[in-house]
Amino acid sequence: MAKTLSTIVSSASQTVEISHSRPTVIIGERINPTGRKKVLAALEAGNFDIIREDTASQVAAGAAILDVNAGVPGADEPALLQQVMRIVMEVTQVPLCIDTANPAALEAALSIYEGKALVNSVNGEERSLGAVLPLVKEHGGAVIGLCMDDGGIPDTPEKRLAVAGKIIERAGKLGIGPEDVVIDPLALTMGADSTAGRVALETIELVVREFGVNITMGASNISFGLPDRKYINAAFIAMAIHAGLTCPITNPLVTEVATAVLAADLAMGRDDYSMRWLQGYRQRQKAAQAD
Amino acid sequence: MAKTLSTIVSSASQTVEISHSRPTVIIGERINPTGRKKVLAALEAGNFDIIREDTASQVAAGAAILDVNAGVPGADEPALLQQVMRIVMEVTQVPLCIDTANPAALEAALSIYEGKALVNSVNGEERSLGAVLPLVKEHGGAVIGLCMDDGGIPDTPEKRLAVAGKIIERAGKLGIGPEDVVIDPLALTMGADSTAGRVALETIELVVREFGVNITMGASNISFGLPDRKYINAAFIAMAIHAGLTCPITNPLVTEVATAVLAADLAMGRDDYSMRWLQGYRQRQKAAQAD
Repeated sequence: MAKTLSTIVSSASQTVEISHSRPTVIIGERINPTGRKKVLAALEAGNFDIIREDTASQVAAGAAILDVNAGVPGADEPALLQQVMRIVMEVTQVPLCIDTANPAALEAALSIYEGKALVNSVNGEERSLGAVLPLVKEHGGAVIGLCMDDGGIPDTPEKRLAVAGKIIERAGKLGIGPEDVVIDPLALTMGADSTAGRVALETIELVVREFGVNITMGASNISFGLPDRKYINAAFIAMAIHAGLTCPITNPLVTEVATAVLAADLAMGRDDYSMRWLQGYRQRQKAAQAD
Repeated sequence: MAKTLSTIVSSASQTVEISHSRPTVIIGERINPTGRKKVLAALEAGNFDIIREDTASQVAAGAAILDVNAGVPGADEPALLQQVMRIVMEVTQVPLCIDTANPAALEAALSIYEGKALVNSVNGEERSLGAVLPLVKEHGGAVIGLCMDDGGIPDTPEKRLAVAGKIIERAGKLGIGPEDVVIDPLALTMGADSTAGRVALETIELVVREFGVNITMGASNISFGLPDRKYINAAFIAMAIHAGLTCPITNPLVTEVATAVLAADLAMGRDDYSMRWLQGYRQRQKAAQAD
């Protein structure tokens, strides 16, 4: 069993520690035009009000890090990503998770970021490892490693563990320690494959036992195509936290999911005197009164 | 890592298999006057309508086994327990979990029960082991073993594992195999001790790894004294199922908890084609329309 590690990310003025012994860190997912037509249309029109709103509301709802994605088809992604980041950084001081598959956009983003960013993401493909890891090293960030490689997404936890190991090893060779690699086991859709949840949970357990690294995951894909998704996502995120998930990428405005995260921290003994649970309860009461 | 075991319980006409590879078995907790003034008053008055209602509603909500407790202060418990069991067995065919701390009541209950009952409970105290296990052996039941002994409830998972081991060993000496011992790790109140949840979860993992037995737990005590208890209980039961809980004692009428159990089974890959999830969804829709 590996010793568990802490990952530090920061902005110019704030530091966040992700660790297996501290409360779960929520990475807010909403600043992303993928699958959100309203955001896509606003970015295409050069209207950034929705970005400001999504920034403020996610931080108010408990996001400790914000994912920023500016993947608008046909746009100049390096310039647009910088622009969106600047808007976000005007509104909040929380550290950012820079989310792009475009190395030029990643470099542009890292070049204007003050602090230690979380980079979303590298995977086990040679092309990805070669493009992303040197930029992370040069700019001093932490990086999310997806459990997929040139052969696609492996179907067993053991094979996903092997991809995680490869990413951690290649990062290490460049001088990026395992404390700066956050592994994403990849949660596929259970509607298509009823073992998808179990494979993700088992991958988390194997990776934590073997490497002690922090774990992220998009926790909503799992329920795609099924009814009452928020209940599935809430139970799944609690189970994943028990397995070793430490920094889910999710929407903190979904009360069921945010509440499940607080309850899971409570059950893991990471909420002294139930302070965070009680604070969350008061916020929900206040929000209900405001409605 | 021990091979996981199946526990079979039955009524005169129905059999339930509790196993780590099958959907979670809910043991309905409501036929119990402890802390339920309405039930207590009805039993004292000899009015059994509430027992009939609690039987039918729990089975309709998905309970596969019903816990039956007739612990009314000052009453003739052996006679009252038999009477309550007879009422329950008129309404349903699901197997029963006979819940009493009184050996005479247990013997009376087992003597009229047709099938293989689950007995709730024995613990590691010498007096309990000596009184309960021979009755279980004589009548051919399965038994819930609580992780406490003459020294009280141990404060660490390792010590609770030791108590579980002692109960399993003593049962074995009488010819009751480990497949017929269901361990309860004991979930105490997190409001009083913030490690209570974690200790219960770790005990479950240790006991399953060591002995492969099935696990039960009352999953609502954990949140006593805290606000929004149903959300805590829902997350905790999902995490406990991930840890190895197979037959919680709970109230299936609490939608949040029943839904979390279905979602947890889905995430564990124990719900082929999401059939049970979809069935639960349709039932919730129907109930909402009926409101």
